[in-house]
Amino acid sequence: MKTKYERLLSLYKEALIVEEVLMFLYWDRDVTMPKGGVKQKAEQVAYLSQLEHEKRIKPEIGILLKEIQNHSDYNSFTELEKRNVFLINRQYYKIINIPPEFVGEFNKQCVIANDAWEKAKDESDFSLFLPELEKMIDFNKKYAHFLNPDIDPYDALIDYSEPGMTQEKFEKIVNPLKEATVQLLKKCIEAEKQPNLTILSRKVPIKLQKKLNNDVLKLVEYDLNRGRLDETVHPFTTGNYDDVRITTKYYEDNMISALMSTMHEAGHGTYEQNVGKNGRYQPIGMWCSDGIHEGCARFYENIIGLSNPFWKFYFPKLKEVTGEIYSEVSLEDFVFAINRTKPTAIRTDADELTYNLHIILRFEIERDLLNGRIKVEDLPIIWSKKMKDLLDYEVQNDAEGVLQDIHWSDGLMGYFPTYTLGNIFGAQIFSQLKKEIPNWETQIESGNLKVVLDWFKVNVHERGNIKDSHEMVKEITGEEVTSEYLINYLQEKYTYLYDLD
Amino acid sequence: MKTKYERLLSLYKEALIVEEVLMFLYWDRDVTMPKGGVKQKAEQVAYLSQLEHEKRIKPEIGILLKEIQNHSDYNSFTELEKRNVFLINRQYYKIINIPPEFVGEFNKQCVIANDAWEKAKDESDFSLFLPELEKMIDFNKKYAHFLNPDIDPYDALIDYSEPGMTQEKFEKIVNPLKEATVQLLKKCIEAEKQPNLTILSRKVPIKLQKKLNNDVLKLVEYDLNRGRLDETVHPFTTGNYDDVRITTKYYEDNMISALMSTMHEAGHGTYEQNVGKNGRYQPIGMWCSDGIHEGCARFYENIIGLSNPFWKFYFPKLKEVTGEIYSEVSLEDFVFAINRTKPTAIRTDADELTYNLHIILRFEIERDLLNGRIKVEDLPIIWSKKMKDLLDYEVQNDAEGVLQDIHWSDGLMGYFPTYTLGNIFGAQIFSQLKKEIPNWETQIESGNLKVVLDWFKVNVHERGNIKDSHEMVKEITGEEVTSEYLINYLQEKYTYLYDLD
Repeated sequence: MKTKYERLLSLYKEALIVEEVLMFLYWDRDVTMPKGGVKQKAEQVAYLSQLEHEKRIKPEIGILLKEIQNHSDYNSFTELEKRNVFLINRQYYKIINIPPEFVGEFNKQCVIANDAWEKAKDESDFSLFLPELEKMIDFNKKYAHFLNPDIDPYDALIDYSEPGMTQEKFEKIVNPLKEATVQLLKKCIEAEKQPNLTILSRKVPIKLQKKLNNDVLKLVEYDLNRGRLDETVHPFTTGNYDDVRITTKYYEDNMISALMSTMHEAGHGTYEQNVGKNGRYQPIGMWCSDGIHEGCARFYENIIGLSNPFWKFYFPKLKEVTGEIYSEVSLEDFVFAINRTKPTAIRTDADELTYNLHIILRFEIERDLLNGRIKVEDLPIIWSKKMKDLLDYEVQNDAEGVLQDIHWSDGLMGYFPTYTLGNIFGAQIFSQLKKEIPNWETQIESGNLKVVLDWFKVNVHERGNIKDSHEMVKEITGEEVTSEYLINYLQEKYTYLYDLD
Repeated sequence: MKTKYERLLSLYKEALIVEEVLMFLYWDRDVTMPKGGVKQKAEQVAYLSQLEHEKRIKPEIGILLKEIQNHSDYNSFTELEKRNVFLINRQYYKIINIPPEFVGEFNKQCVIANDAWEKAKDESDFSLFLPELEKMIDFNKKYAHFLNPDIDPYDALIDYSEPGMTQEKFEKIVNPLKEATVQLLKKCIEAEKQPNLTILSRKVPIKLQKKLNNDVLKLVEYDLNRGRLDETVHPFTTGNYDDVRITTKYYEDNMISALMSTMHEAGHGTYEQNVGKNGRYQPIGMWCSDGIHEGCARFYENIIGLSNPFWKFYFPKLKEVTGEIYSEVSLEDFVFAINRTKPTAIRTDADELTYNLHIILRFEIERDLLNGRIKVEDLPIIWSKKMKDLLDYEVQNDAEGVLQDIHWSDGLMGYFPTYTLGNIFGAQIFSQLKKEIPNWETQIESGNLKVVLDWFKVNVHERGNIKDSHEMVKEITGEEVTSEYLINYLQEKYTYLYDLD
């Protein structure tokens, strides 16, 4: 019986090793590959992707799962062992029901849709993307049906990224956040006290920025002996355990952009470096959900990286490295500037406060699209109306509106909510951290980030995937998932920054 | 029937894609991997190695090979198609007869032997390596038997690296070279005219060296859009077709070392970049043999890179880049210095002339070991005696003698001859090039290396593996393989340099 369990785990590990190699091929494609090698790399990727899929749907897995779970000894399994079996079972039955022909057709349609999206975005003309987007929605509906035919299609898609989450639950969690954010944003815009943003565009030589970013990585306990930092157009994290690689992007006239990207990816990266505590190459020794992953990244980027205590410690060091550039800037002005909030068109440029509004907008549109409550052709108008309602922003054209994100043309629907769930998880877990480390601020101010980050490591990273995200958050904080803590955090922060009542 | 042939090729391609990924994992291990990732990488490598092996011995290949070759339509196959079938057949039956348990045990023994070798070398004490080397010889004998039970074991090992080659043939080719080299070396040492070697150790900043090396890569038609140059402890080439990566090693006080390493690897690299002309991912669109591969590298490194015409063109450019450092050095002195010949202990540091003596020594020892004509325990004495006879060099200790090479502890026997075969092939092919491009010297002097290298590309690289090496050399030059051309080349070169009669 235990032999069967071990065999099951070894099959899981096999697929995971192929996945590791695949992640690494993608890393190479974006970081080190000579340009001419692109087609050859695509062939390698295609071959290994197929191999990974075969490994994950191997009939032997199905047989072992039945034999183990139906065996009388199964009751004597530990909770963690049962969780391993449960997770392999869940993944197996999600994938096994998807016909391989469907995967092939969906992938083809993604290539076509991506192409159409790029052209449409270039010409800022939604009508060029419309027919392909309609097809993508149909594909997503079918996909959702394969994942779980018994529930609402959009719920099936959300559940794939964030097991246990539904649109109803998400609405309940997020609606108070939406309301509070809209009001808070309005107050900030109307406030008398406003930040001086020009200090952010001071030119800092890339060489100095590299020094700062490497410095910060050490501060936030990202292990450079088991990882590396490179430059790419779009920052990302890839790899796991002892080989986790992150990237950033430098702009000479936007130093804070690279630093925050690096903090964000270090949040993803340290998660992957520490996640295997419960058993490497086992499901319980893997990341929990997209939302928790994003929560880790946002914790490092926003809650730590944009905080007053962090800059109280690090601003003098930054001044040392950058010499004249920031010599006369006060800590207060600097922290205010990097935390400015402002309605803007593009999600990826949004600040900590407005970001969630961009996500809520997308969630509502996806929900209504999948449920047939709105028509695809009406999207530009709906998008503009929501941008006006939520952010008081007038969308100028399709490129900065409905066409800005790659997700839909990539076949990704139901993924957007995980970004805001990340913020919500992060803030709720942070509230617990503050209870357990009451002097967290003075610790960070004195450069002792380790105390704070070690708490996060033990309580989040090392938990791996022993519970689904909402249960895990409850286990850590003693409460159901709620946006209350994020609302309080944002209100406190922005009230202080903008000197609100 | 053609469907079966296509299926056979697609199975071959599958294994090759896995091999490509493997090569790339090794590249990463040596170039970009964070140090902490070494165990994880080893697991990936082990898994993919096993996968590649499984792909190569898939029973379906054996069935297809029989069906295709026994079919009445097989006669209507083109020569190239038949060559593909022949090569897959040859590889399949070489591998299929090796029991997997044997591979496992051999690999284990290599790890143990490698460890013993390192310790022995560190302490310069052959007796520490002796028992492991004895085991390695036994393993090699068994291995040879699996490869081909009907021929002499050492012949089977040589044939594995250089199909069609035997010890008898090699001796016949190489004995005149041995004799001529010993005499020529003696004359050079006794010559009145001697080079000024101090100019070679002038310090050249690594930054400038990098510029020179990248420059030279363009000159020798290595396509940097389909390749890249990195730094490693031991220079190497890996990859194929559109993604071929080379490495070099810089020493501040030995500029010529990096340049010649780069030329050498560019010789390997351009071969791989051009070799697929007859059909990528087919056996005929692959490299021919280790000897031909080495021949390509030596052609670029020695015949071009150490030649007078090349430096007539490039020395002024080198002076431009390095400013004061070489400003007063004459072309003649420089070329003489980089071509100096001298008896030295270490093969990898040997010059163009003495290098082959180091190889012949190893060949004779391997031959006699495998045939039981000498005892392992006598190796240090035999080594010293041969070094004295061939190079008039007094070996000081085991570390600079019998323990210097990693090959035997890595399980490689019968491989050494390919190095000298490379030199022999290169010189013989070069003689044909000179016939077909009589003004080759003035072409190179004027920087038009393309004319010369394009000839080499068409005649060597692009031939891929349509013939075994000795047949290919005959096809290119109209003559059986002979060391005559290498002897003439060396005599002409060193007579000129050392002003001999």
